[in-house]
Amino acid sequence: MLRARVVGNVWATRRLAEIPNGAFLEVEADGGGRLVAFDVLGTGIGEHVLVATGSVAASWFQTSGGPSSANRPAPPIDALVIGSIDEPPADDLP
Amino acid sequence: MLRARVVGNVWATRRLAEIPNGAFLEVEADGGGRLVAFDVLGTGIGEHVLVATGSVAASWFQTSGGPSSANRPAPPIDALVIGSIDEPPADDLP
Amino acid sequence: MLRARVVGNVWATRRLAEIPNGAFLEVEADGGGRLVAFDVLGTGIGEHVLVATGSVAASWFQTSGGPSSANRPAPPIDALVIGSIDEPPADDLP
Amino acid sequence: MLRARVVGNVWATRRLAEIPNGAFLEVEADGGGRLVAFDVLGTGIGEHVLVATGSVAASWFQTSGGPSSANRPAPPIDALVIGSIDEPPADDLP
Amino acid sequence: MLRARVVGNVWATRRLAEIPNGAFLEVEADGGGRLVAFDVLGTGIGEHVLVATGSVAASWFQTSGGPSSANRPAPPIDALVIGSIDEPPADDLP
Repeated sequence: MLRARVVGNVWATRRLAEIPNGAFLEVEADGGGRLVAFDVLGTGIGEHVLVATGSVAASWFQTSGGPSSANRPAPPIDALVIGSIDEPPADDLP
Repeated sequence: MLRARVVGNVWATRRLAEIPNGAFLEVEADGGGRLVAFDVLGTGIGEHVLVATGSVAASWFQTSGGPSSANRPAPPIDALVIGSIDEPPADDLP
Repeated sequence: MLRARVVGNVWATRRLAEIPNGAFLEVEADGGGRLVAFDVLGTGIGEHVLVATGSVAASWFQTSGGPSSANRPAPPIDALVIGSIDEPPADDLP
Repeated sequence: MLRARVVGNVWATRRLAEIPNGAFLEVEADGGGRLVAFDVLGTGIGEHVLVATGSVAASWFQTSGGPSSANRPAPPIDALVIGSIDEPPADDLP
Repeated sequence: MLRARVVGNVWATRRLAEIPNGAFLEVEADGGGRLVAFDVLGTGIGEHVLVATGSVAASWFQTSGGPSSANRPAPPIDALVIGSIDEPPADDLP
């Protein structure tokens, strides 16, 4: 997974019909480089997140409802926000 | 996904028979680097797009018709235009 | 696989429900670059590890219990610590 | 997909038995970098090609004969020449 | 596939139980960069090899015994030596 910070939203009204509900977020990876990740957690701009890339991002949509949904089509999504990184408590800060 | 701008068409008359209907577009990723993505949306040169890479690009062709088509062969395509990025309204421009 | 050294833990309390039991470890790859890998081996900070990336990391969770678990959903995990690299015996050190 | 130019053949007599009929071609990607792609089109040295990478290269071998062959094993091939790029007509050249 | 040269062995006694019989080899890719590939061919240090990366490396273990083994679990292996590159005959050398 990549550590990244959300830097903006991306809107694409004209798109493939198979894209699920959620948001496209532009994120900047720690160490540099930007990509667009899909988000279903309601993540906001400025949050630090974990992003999984590749086919596991799409597979999540097939299996997130449990085994009974295993034949759901996989959407054409190759990056997914899987969690929001906890902020350190204030007394850990320099 | 990558943000990219379409910079040209690529034609390959001699090719594997399993390549579906659509266009090969050369795109330039934001941040640099070029790749060739497959397009089924009728995207034109100069448009800004979202490109998904890897096996999810091929899987889309298997499942785009819904669950009944789940056994359709996956084409040898590793990059797909999944949407056209909305242009900002004029008063957002500098 | 990548050779890497564990440099820290990453905590993400708000995350997708499908993430299994285990730890997110930040690792630094030999040759540079950091990523976050999932760990089920109880690996500690400072250990040198082998990290597998991509969909094989997720597939392991589907099949680790043997063939009977082959329909378990794959979690959205794209990097997995698969082993801890043996330290050389003391008399191999300079 | 990558645009690339074929720069040579690679021979590997001792190899896994599951590698199918075809040729290993060394290709140089536009923008730099070399990789070895598998070819079933009879592509020659100097030709410009489109190369698909990742698991879609292997999947093609499973499905190229149509749905009836869907259970054929996937070979350990991660890059495949999927087409030969058309040369521009002479009057487009500078 | 990558062209690479085997530069050493990597030992990991404490590791996931699903890793099959074979060796972890550290390889240096032509053009630079190192990774660890799994080897089942008995490849030695100094040999030049072809390495396939990504999920096709794991899939090979599922299907190498033929279709009857198609439900074997895929190991968490993301790089595999698929062949040893033939040395050029002596009179091709400079």
